[in-house]
Amino acid sequence: MKVFNIASIPGDGIGKEVVPAAKHVLEVLAEIHGGLRFEFTDFPWDCHYYLENGSMMPEDGLETLKPYDAIFLGAVGNKKLVPDHISLWGLLIKIRREFEQVINLRPAKMFHGVKSPLANPKDFDLIVVRENSEGEYSSIGGRIYQGEDEIAIQNGVFSRKGTERAIRFAFELAKKRNRHVTSATKSNGIYHSMPFWDEVFEDVAKDYPNVKTESQHIDALAAFFVTRPEQFDVIVGSNLFGDILTDIGAAIMGSVGIAPAANINVNGKYPSMFEPVHGSAPDIVGQGIANPIGQIWTAKMMLDHFGEEELGEVLLDVVESVLKDGFLTPDVGGQSTTKEVTDEVIARLQAKQ
Amino acid sequence: MKVFNIASIPGDGIGKEVVPAAKHVLEVLAEIHGGLRFEFTDFPWDCHYYLENGSMMPEDGLETLKPYDAIFLGAVGNKKLVPDHISLWGLLIKIRREFEQVINLRPAKMFHGVKSPLANPKDFDLIVVRENSEGEYSSIGGRIYQGEDEIAIQNGVFSRKGTERAIRFAFELAKKRNRHVTSATKSNGIYHSMPFWDEVFEDVAKDYPNVKTESQHIDALAAFFVTRPEQFDVIVGSNLFGDILTDIGAAIMGSVGIAPAANINVNGKYPSMFEPVHGSAPDIVGQGIANPIGQIWTAKMMLDHFGEEELGEVLLDVVESVLKDGFLTPDVGGQSTTKEVTDEVIARLQAKQ
Ligand SMILES: CC(C)[C@H](C(=O)O)[C@@H](O)C(=O)O
Ligand SMILES: CC(C)[C@H](C(=O)O)[C@@H](O)C(=O)O
Repeated sequence: MKVFNIASIPGDGIGKEVVPAAKHVLEVLAEIHGGLRFEFTDFPWDCHYYLENGSMMPEDGLETLKPYDAIFLGAVGNKKLVPDHISLWGLLIKIRREFEQVINLRPAKMFHGVKSPLANPKDFDLIVVRENSEGEYSSIGGRIYQGEDEIAIQNGVFSRKGTERAIRFAFELAKKRNRHVTSATKSNGIYHSMPFWDEVFEDVAKDYPNVKTESQHIDALAAFFVTRPEQFDVIVGSNLFGDILTDIGAAIMGSVGIAPAANINVNGKYPSMFEPVHGSAPDIVGQGIANPIGQIWTAKMMLDHFGEEELGEVLLDVVESVLKDGFLTPDVGGQSTTKEVTDEVIARLQAKQ
Repeated sequence: MKVFNIASIPGDGIGKEVVPAAKHVLEVLAEIHGGLRFEFTDFPWDCHYYLENGSMMPEDGLETLKPYDAIFLGAVGNKKLVPDHISLWGLLIKIRREFEQVINLRPAKMFHGVKSPLANPKDFDLIVVRENSEGEYSSIGGRIYQGEDEIAIQNGVFSRKGTERAIRFAFELAKKRNRHVTSATKSNGIYHSMPFWDEVFEDVAKDYPNVKTESQHIDALAAFFVTRPEQFDVIVGSNLFGDILTDIGAAIMGSVGIAPAANINVNGKYPSMFEPVHGSAPDIVGQGIANPIGQIWTAKMMLDHFGEEELGEVLLDVVESVLKDGFLTPDVGGQSTTKEVTDEVIARLQAKQ
């Protein structure tokens, strides 16, 4: 019996609604499989925790998480309670950084049955490899002067190591997919970091002569995600560019509520973290209508990471069929509840047994 | 007779095709008006100029441009000839900076007759106010080490003055429109500059109690441009965020070939510059099929700047009718040439006389 120990952090808002749903699905999958088990331990770290304790997690929080095989996270942040940059940097970004989850992976694909905002979406199936540890998201910088002379400086930090690692990851992934990597750049406007990014991209590309490459400025690329997403396979971008592209990717799928993500630790020293793209959505909390699909698809990415790709494939197939048959929460134009969609996924999984 | 002296820089690629078209339109408008005249002086500054002279413009280029009432620019850049960051920083960005064109204005609206990539576009009509002088586009930064230890640092510089100026411009504009300003931020991820941006936004907002405000993270906002553009009026963003949003704005209109822009000098010390959003499009150069509408709508923004709003309105109405009646270049799904679309605009203007 393989046992996977998973630290579960539902976090804020609808995180608390969709994480239990996806855990339930995982438990059913384990039963179906027969040879594996998931052991979940819940951690109540969220903005309320911050208000009580003055930090988003205990001082030894990272030590506590370290032995787990993976972290399964819902959503973090509730700016009515805690400023976002405090809640996020104190939990989500902190874990990404300290656990060297240097790659953020986010697929986007067209699901039949889900209304896309696009007029004639062709069957797109892309994945964004986002550099997840440095770049524009840096805590280096600060301010000088007060009042009308005030200046804020923000440093973006791009290391050869970090940049190359993300780009190489993208090429390796492309070899298993359609052998096409697009680099998100902005070397026509951003003077130092982006020409550097381009150089590294060109260097790495030389090692993959059988992979087609393309380089696009982020402004144009963001537009292409709207006008021709089907022409992309793997896209690699900096922390910020990857962030922006993946929200557009989620939008063209029909809802940010569907989109999954994985934060991958590549050196095996720390657990990886799996969290959907959506936020905590305080506006719909408590109504039971949060879309569980983002968190469930995220569970599939965790299965892939555990080497259980076959089980992951079973789950994704069921998700596709459930959506196609109209089990849809309001964000994707339906009237089903979180529970109804989850129950249907579970029922169809059980039917496969 | 009012005379406007205009420095015309067609630049690279299709810039050379659409600038003459729009100049022609302006000349016809002057005739119709009767009381004004445009005097154009052409400057051949482009990537070829760079290859011959080692710089994108002569050393006294800025001095030469300074006395003009406006600069009318096509497109700059051809990365097959000159790396983008050299051509752009040597001409386009140089003029924006040195002439203190601190605001970049870019409208996006739905045109009937032009196929949008969106499924059910509602009548959107928004304008992005982009900070145009600082932020992420800074030449401060550099590199250390070589090879695998190499690190590139990119500084983003946000001054209270620059940030406040852009935000205030947005609020003033909103007063003349639908009294709604959306701020593009990323204070949940970008630690120093974006919380600063938010503070300035909140401060300025206090002076405009009758304007509705909203703050959205750039990733979400980029997605909202796809899912609900009709809910925005004025959006204010940093240099980079404004850049990305306006390309999405152009995409949802149906083509980047339609979208106009104005680089506004607000202190009256230097000329403003008018240039469409599209680039030099080397792939379609010489085929006579470049969309002239972006450059023509840009001419309308120049007219507004000259205080000739009425004439500008006449022009925009004609543009709308021409598009609606199907005079469309291939980028917007038609088969008309640059010349055919331009001739139709001119014919309809002349018919109004
Ligand atoms: C060419 C490039 C430097 C420029 C920019 O990013 O400012 C362009 O994308 C634009 O938006 O005018
Ligand atoms: C919440 C925020 C800091 C985060 C990010 O930008 O990384 C989110 O948008 C995401 O993409 O996971």
